[in-house]
Amino acid sequence: MARKVDLNADMGESFGPWVMGRDADLLRIVTSANIACGFHAGDPDVMARTMRLAVENGVGIGAHPGFADLQGFGRRRMSLPASQLRNLVQYQLGAAQAIARAAGGRVAHLKLHGALANMAADDAAMATACYEAALEIDPDLIVMVLVGTAQERAAEALGCRIAGEIFADRAYNDDATLVDRSLPGAVIHDPQVAARRIAGMVAAGAILTEGGLSLPARIDTICLHGDTPEAVAIAAAVRGALEADGVTLARLAG
Amino acid sequence: MARKVDLNADMGESFGPWVMGRDADLLRIVTSANIACGFHAGDPDVMARTMRLAVENGVGIGAHPGFADLQGFGRRRMSLPASQLRNLVQYQLGAAQAIARAAGGRVAHLKLHGALANMAADDAAMATACYEAALEIDPDLIVMVLVGTAQERAAEALGCRIAGEIFADRAYNDDATLVDRSLPGAVIHDPQVAARRIAGMVAAGAILTEGGLSLPARIDTICLHGDTPEAVAIAAAVRGALEADGVTLARLAG
Amino acid sequence: MARKVDLNADMGESFGPWVMGRDADLLRIVTSANIACGFHAGDPDVMARTMRLAVENGVGIGAHPGFADLQGFGRRRMSLPASQLRNLVQYQLGAAQAIARAAGGRVAHLKLHGALANMAADDAAMATACYEAALEIDPDLIVMVLVGTAQERAAEALGCRIAGEIFADRAYNDDATLVDRSLPGAVIHDPQVAARRIAGMVAAGAILTEGGLSLPARIDTICLHGDTPEAVAIAAAVRGALEADGVTLARLAG
Amino acid sequence: MARKVDLNADMGESFGPWVMGRDADLLRIVTSANIACGFHAGDPDVMARTMRLAVENGVGIGAHPGFADLQGFGRRRMSLPASQLRNLVQYQLGAAQAIARAAGGRVAHLKLHGALANMAADDAAMATACYEAALEIDPDLIVMVLVGTAQERAAEALGCRIAGEIFADRAYNDDATLVDRSLPGAVIHDPQVAARRIAGMVAAGAILTEGGLSLPARIDTICLHGDTPEAVAIAAAVRGALEADGVTLARLAG
Repeated sequence: MARKVDLNADMGESFGPWVMGRDADLLRIVTSANIACGFHAGDPDVMARTMRLAVENGVGIGAHPGFADLQGFGRRRMSLPASQLRNLVQYQLGAAQAIARAAGGRVAHLKLHGALANMAADDAAMATACYEAALEIDPDLIVMVLVGTAQERAAEALGCRIAGEIFADRAYNDDATLVDRSLPGAVIHDPQVAARRIAGMVAAGAILTEGGLSLPARIDTICLHGDTPEAVAIAAAVRGALEADGVTLARLAG
Repeated sequence: MARKVDLNADMGESFGPWVMGRDADLLRIVTSANIACGFHAGDPDVMARTMRLAVENGVGIGAHPGFADLQGFGRRRMSLPASQLRNLVQYQLGAAQAIARAAGGRVAHLKLHGALANMAADDAAMATACYEAALEIDPDLIVMVLVGTAQERAAEALGCRIAGEIFADRAYNDDATLVDRSLPGAVIHDPQVAARRIAGMVAAGAILTEGGLSLPARIDTICLHGDTPEAVAIAAAVRGALEADGVTLARLAG
Repeated sequence: MARKVDLNADMGESFGPWVMGRDADLLRIVTSANIACGFHAGDPDVMARTMRLAVENGVGIGAHPGFADLQGFGRRRMSLPASQLRNLVQYQLGAAQAIARAAGGRVAHLKLHGALANMAADDAAMATACYEAALEIDPDLIVMVLVGTAQERAAEALGCRIAGEIFADRAYNDDATLVDRSLPGAVIHDPQVAARRIAGMVAAGAILTEGGLSLPARIDTICLHGDTPEAVAIAAAVRGALEADGVTLARLAG
Repeated sequence: MARKVDLNADMGESFGPWVMGRDADLLRIVTSANIACGFHAGDPDVMARTMRLAVENGVGIGAHPGFADLQGFGRRRMSLPASQLRNLVQYQLGAAQAIARAAGGRVAHLKLHGALANMAADDAAMATACYEAALEIDPDLIVMVLVGTAQERAAEALGCRIAGEIFADRAYNDDATLVDRSLPGAVIHDPQVAARRIAGMVAAGAILTEGGLSLPARIDTICLHGDTPEAVAIAAAVRGALEADGVTLARLAG
């Protein structure tokens, strides 16, 4: 039976004169790009440039909103009431929609960034506030969620289009949570190991845990990183292994 | 013959904990609100609050983009290449569109703010870059221009919907430019004087200059200020005089 | 026996075009001003203006650093590692020292702002990081602490100069913590009530609790607010009551 | 006769998660570092890290203030009144002094950045406002000026300590101005050519122009760039050539 999966990566994380990431390399590998919206990274010029490149490469565009914390790259937790979270997400999504339109594309999906994503993975009310706000702007938006987290539960309760995501380079516990980064083996550095694991999970339609369990999961997209040469090699290896298995790599149906 | 005119004012210029303007008072007087988009003033929460109020009052919503200069309130000139101007305008317009949609409204017009507006009034290429960028996002957008400036010429050349604007509280030279603020009489402080002048101009369809000339002009909207009690009094007097003349006050046809 | 106490208030919380607070009124009442340093409020121009006014009024100058969160006015909690807290405090203190010097004054004390202060009141390690960093820049700096909190314990352990602070308009529990704002009577609105309470505490050298206890405390300074007419009235009443009691009002010995 | 010269480069231009420049390489070559102060680049953490490295390498520390324009890297011209320029410089200088002190060093010199520097090179009043403000904070500060510009004239009129600067990689016109970047030969890319030119100028105590003139000039420091591998090679070649000539390379006497 033919399987289909999306490959996503964060992009457009440069700012002003500062370059981050290997966007050009990744755009030849991924099928969807999560593009920073100017609050934790990205600026209107970086967004425009990155979205044009995504369109040229046939890569799907996602809005990737984060906290308004440039120095902390949106990785520092901030406590905001739900109304502020809503406005934060809507503002950034709207800005991304306009820039995408000017680039000849459109925003197909939403993925939360950094501390905002981490907090929403633990707190369904927070995830709901963010997703509901985004869907108010575009009810057809695909919400990209970390499978097995409050993100997924919140999106399911909203009845919206969902893309379930797993990580290419992280080991999973038997309860489907990520192995803590401080533990050995938590982060996978070997491209072939990462590629085989992901190919296995996509074939199984399940998360394969460190303890040997197979946990059925919605695996619509694989999260790749791209800030290091190693990360790009992992991305390429994952793509190669999936193609070798006959899996179709295709952007989320926008 | 029935005349119709719009009354506009800048709003949503608070930021975080700081309050600016008498938005609630003005929303009972104007028919269109130019709402700051977060770069020179406003933030996502202020935008949301202001747009909801505008919708409740039946007031038209405009995006009011400015330079990314919060401390300077967008009043300090900055030199940006055309591509950056385009992205700056599109980003802010898109953000405004999303927040407006969530508020149950929509962005009907665009008006440039502060130094960006002043520079575009002198420089048609700059005005063109800004307006063309905005129209790429919404071709039906009404571009609000200062009559007799490069703003108006740029918008006319683009063939877009235009709302020509005059000031309620400024005197005009015989070449349709504003009398320099440093000269006596340049700014009108007396509500009745301002009201009579504007009523006269709307009746004449022309700018009435200090030198006694009547310069035919597209007068679609009157710019009111609202930061002082006096300004609100002028706004109310202008509205009253126009109503007494049988002029219909109506938001721009969005 | 003659008693002496300082009266402090936050000031310089305007930003760019936005005005906050009644600094001019307060400067006639207080003996020390906690001046925002540009991260949560204030900008170089506001700081310069406020410090010049403080010098003219013989009011002591304090640096009042906060989180880099202008929109949230430094009131949203952020989690920063100790090294970043140290640099955050040193940067803002140094900026304040320079502006104070140019204004003909000097920074005599340090008081943390908003969420940074609240977190340091609960977390001695955080308070220590902030105070130690500040003392590295000026070992003679007076650290203003909320009495009975981790702020006070951290400053005591550092062996630095300390000014213990109580609130003019807040009721205290029997364990010296503040009565929760959601409870009736937590915030005192009546100037005379506030004035009598503070006069009593200063006379007793103790916090007088809602439960009728008298908890001996280091009371070097009284925190006044100044954003509302009522707050200014409370400030004036407190000053009047202390003067009537023969208490000397004097800025912290810098 | 023994000659002595300083080699300077801009550093600490990273921000938050974004890395810029090859500071570690350059710190082995230069004798003075111009360290960004958080407005156009740098943040408190980057400043602290860079200043500690400078101290470890025995490299002199300079404050390198710029416009508050992170996205534009301080390269976009802004028009500020003199009072704002003064506060802008004092704030950044004070912050740098505090961070330097915590790093075990001190700010020995001031060099303006980007558009602020370019504008001050053309406009003596602007240079005077900036330098006078800085000297108010530290009268012993060495002001680094582009020789032959309004910067130099302003500093001379103030009677302060001055370090005259020439560029390692730029050709000079016969009137001591820089050859416009758009002209061939304006920027020198060959390390050996740059090194020979600079060695010649230092030996002559004069700017050697494209037209063959020798214009006597105060050459106290050579400005090196460091953002590219080529730039680091030029820096190393310049240092080598000067050492071969017996020139002493020493930081500005702080």
